[in-house]
Amino acid sequence: MAGLSDVIEFLNNHESFFIASHINPDGDTLGSALALAFALERLGKKSTVYDLDGVPETYAFLPGAERVISGDLPKNIGATPLMLIDCNAPVRAGLEGIAFTHACVIDHHVTETDFGSVRWIDTTSPATGLMIYDLIKALNINITASIAVNIYTAIVIDTGTFRFPNTNPQSLRAAAELVEHGAKPGDIAQQLYQSWSQERFSLLIHSLSSVELHGAVAFTVLSSETFRQTGTSPSDTENFVNFPLTISDVKVSALMREVDQNDWRVSLRSKGTVDVSGAASKFGGGGHVNAAGCTMHGPLEEVKLSLLSALKELTGLA
Amino acid sequence: MAGLSDVIEFLNNHESFFIASHINPDGDTLGSALALAFALERLGKKSTVYDLDGVPETYAFLPGAERVISGDLPKNIGATPLMLIDCNAPVRAGLEGIAFTHACVIDHHVTETDFGSVRWIDTTSPATGLMIYDLIKALNINITASIAVNIYTAIVIDTGTFRFPNTNPQSLRAAAELVEHGAKPGDIAQQLYQSWSQERFSLLIHSLSSVELHGAVAFTVLSSETFRQTGTSPSDTENFVNFPLTISDVKVSALMREVDQNDWRVSLRSKGTVDVSGAASKFGGGGHVNAAGCTMHGPLEEVKLSLLSALKELTGLA
Repeated sequence: MAGLSDVIEFLNNHESFFIASHINPDGDTLGSALALAFALERLGKKSTVYDLDGVPETYAFLPGAERVISGDLPKNIGATPLMLIDCNAPVRAGLEGIAFTHACVIDHHVTETDFGSVRWIDTTSPATGLMIYDLIKALNINITASIAVNIYTAIVIDTGTFRFPNTNPQSLRAAAELVEHGAKPGDIAQQLYQSWSQERFSLLIHSLSSVELHGAVAFTVLSSETFRQTGTSPSDTENFVNFPLTISDVKVSALMREVDQNDWRVSLRSKGTVDVSGAASKFGGGGHVNAAGCTMHGPLEEVKLSLLSALKELTGLA
Repeated sequence: MAGLSDVIEFLNNHESFFIASHINPDGDTLGSALALAFALERLGKKSTVYDLDGVPETYAFLPGAERVISGDLPKNIGATPLMLIDCNAPVRAGLEGIAFTHACVIDHHVTETDFGSVRWIDTTSPATGLMIYDLIKALNINITASIAVNIYTAIVIDTGTFRFPNTNPQSLRAAAELVEHGAKPGDIAQQLYQSWSQERFSLLIHSLSSVELHGAVAFTVLSSETFRQTGTSPSDTENFVNFPLTISDVKVSALMREVDQNDWRVSLRSKGTVDVSGAASKFGGGGHVNAAGCTMHGPLEEVKLSLLSALKELTGLA
């Protein structure tokens, strides 16, 4: 892997690193960044882990979560070699406008920019966490329990605990070794999937009760009023968009959350070969075949009509 | 593994087998039985796969599902060597009263009986499917796609797709090899988790809306009336009992389904070390630490009070 050897050279050439994960962070970006920080420590190197938005409550259990700094950037940070993790454009990590002297990118998303002097981007990898695993193996670093839990969580989040079509033998074999080194699948699943507030559970009931089927398309709407009533916020809706896909006939699920009056954050998910990225792009968003998103503006009924029409046209569903 | 070599000898000594899976079948018993049938075929041996209750719709995708016979037993079946799979008492497969000349048991449940001249019971194995995998490897049989899909499904069902605490490195490594031989994680997950009827989805909403919290215990009640209204039946509730466990404070979830007037089928699930098997036993049922069940009789309010009192007493929850 050309990119991998370049990354190793980059790490060998510097002693201190600024590791940045993406905004609105998930388990893959945080687990990857923290595992890398622990690995660098084993090499006697220093690092700072940064996420503009900080660590969400769900991921507070990750070893090292307390060392993630957020918000304002440290002064003169451009002089510290940057490791940009699980994204490949500075704007995705809140770093736009900073001139980094040295920058290295590790990511598995489709390339958006040519940022970085060293770029290891493997769009065939199910998770950036699996790339960090390969990096750590290539560096002959012992996998500690802290590294194992972070990488296991990263892989689990981006493969839907091995339920998504991107689950490959490499991810399962890496998971096996990580369990041998201290990752506990039951404990991690409990942290990720069984740590909801009662308010969030109420919001799920509202969410499922609002599902409308339009042929193979399911719409779920959560208004500001519903968030107010249940004492929740749009950040409590993670994974809700996947529930309507449990219905056999549903091929596309769209979740609309009112983030401001007449401002709708839209998440799209699909089954199999049905591609929702085109519909998201049409409204200025983007994503992958089976997972995409965009923001739409206007009264709910108008937004729903535009979205339904775009989905039917661009996914080929009747 | 002593039991494993005995099973191999048993298979070598006979040419034709009656493979029986347990009543109310799940993916582990069916996937294990079918994988074994395909493996025996590779050895040039004959087999019949039997399940008293037949193959539920959810598992119709398993390769070979169409060869499973159900209902009345073939005449003189006692003369055919029996392979009892994923259970260890004849009554669990609807075979009570039949005198089998030769019988072999492969199971991972805590032993209930001493039935069978050959017994391979490994209570440390997360799934009988993983034992069948070890057997097939020991027999040097090539893993075909049909074998891979059946064993992968068996492992997935009994580990909650690698979310339960029983997920071990062996199960993840076996899964990796099974994917290499044709099991498709995304397709199998879609069959298992995304093939619901709309009616079942409505039932889930009723189920979640009925959740009552009593401290760390969640009660969900589904009455005959609800099944009638939604056009569903108690068999549509698989996995519903796990939903309330998403709430952080909930340590025990009890799902009560009215199977006849004032007859309640109760499923119990718990987190971590909280043991629900004692409460199930108290009412004539049984199970494991984290998953147990029983049948209770009486008006709903009385049943709930008895159950809550038993759960609080026997699990140590305040």
